[in-house]
Amino acid sequence: MTKRNSKVSTAVIRRLPRYYRHLTELQRKGVVRISSSALGKSMGLTASQIRQDLFCFGGFGQQGYGYKVDLLREEIGEILGISRGHTAVMVGAGNLGRALMENFEFGSSGFRLLAAFDVRPDTVGRTIGGAPVLHVDGLEDFLAKNQVDVGLLTVPRCAAQSVGERLVAGGVAGIWNFTNGEVSFPGSDVVVENVHFSDSLLTLSYMISQRSDAQTSGKEPQ
Amino acid sequence: MTKRNSKVSTAVIRRLPRYYRHLTELQRKGVVRISSSALGKSMGLTASQIRQDLFCFGGFGQQGYGYKVDLLREEIGEILGISRGHTAVMVGAGNLGRALMENFEFGSSGFRLLAAFDVRPDTVGRTIGGAPVLHVDGLEDFLAKNQVDVGLLTVPRCAAQSVGERLVAGGVAGIWNFTNGEVSFPGSDVVVENVHFSDSLLTLSYMISQRSDAQTSGKEPQ
Repeated sequence: MTKRNSKVSTAVIRRLPRYYRHLTELQRKGVVRISSSALGKSMGLTASQIRQDLFCFGGFGQQGYGYKVDLLREEIGEILGISRGHTAVMVGAGNLGRALMENFEFGSSGFRLLAAFDVRPDTVGRTIGGAPVLHVDGLEDFLAKNQVDVGLLTVPRCAAQSVGERLVAGGVAGIWNFTNGEVSFPGSDVVVENVHFSDSLLTLSYMISQRSDAQTSGKEPQ
Repeated sequence: MTKRNSKVSTAVIRRLPRYYRHLTELQRKGVVRISSSALGKSMGLTASQIRQDLFCFGGFGQQGYGYKVDLLREEIGEILGISRGHTAVMVGAGNLGRALMENFEFGSSGFRLLAAFDVRPDTVGRTIGGAPVLHVDGLEDFLAKNQVDVGLLTVPRCAAQSVGERLVAGGVAGIWNFTNGEVSFPGSDVVVENVHFSDSLLTLSYMISQRSDAQTSGKEPQ
């Protein structure tokens, strides 16, 4: 039903989860239908940008009638692969790993966290957020016996590359890298998605710097 | 020296931290000068995109000679406000908060984390990653006595809005929201930067779904 276009730009792809998030929120609020301009307004995009984005994926909606929220959300979810039953394992059940296990809703993104791996004796053997923490020595065995799509890297930065290589050798399709270190797997077509906290903080730094400059130029310093 | 253009698009602003990160890496590798096309290649952008982006900020570099890595990095850092001595406090020293305190290099983004606030008796009074954990009852007093630019929200989602309001009332310019809940402060010009882990995971979900489709259509299923 959904037309997929493999030439879709990275920028559009990056916006799809935002669409999905906003549509989920609209659905929760009971909104049934929304125009491109209203959806754009809530997302900080122009109506024409929205129409262009959605056109890349085969065009939903009907000129002048807007989009049906539930249908558009479902279609975008489909494109994002939410119904594919993706699975994940995590390596590194330190503070960040535990925070994700306890609080992050993997299910909302269509993922199931099968297990976490660590070396600490006080952590291995526990169950956190519904998933067992196993010893990392058993990683290869686990990957051989289970279909695992994504490996989360929440190890210390210095271990990122070597642990990533073990996950890739074990056959994962994607690496979700929280280590703030660069990882690369030449010769493999594994997909790496980095979470760069610093990019987010620097964007905030820019925004508050602009705000501060505007205040300084707009009124007398106190 | 740097020309600032307040009409710069959000997309360009979002790319600036990535430029900064890549240039930092290039500098570390000893690269002195880089062309738009080489910089583009390492960042997954076209040379013309790079020239356009940097033109927004007054244009660095010289046609045919490329960019001086250290100069460009410094200029972009300046635009991002890295040298402004921004300060931050964190509310919520749970797993995620502690992970950030212990592992995130605030200094690399030009920030100093002054303190964290929590309520747990086993956490309040400790020093983590160089910053003290204080009782959240003292938050208002601390904000009154210290210049705090950014408040980090690492509290449970249900507390996000109310704690955010206390930070905004205390005068912070920006909120760095890790709670995965929406916060809004009508009537205030505070800048909110959300870290949406799910957007990142859904992007990865899309990429591995595409990869899987390509494999299925390109070769016989095993």
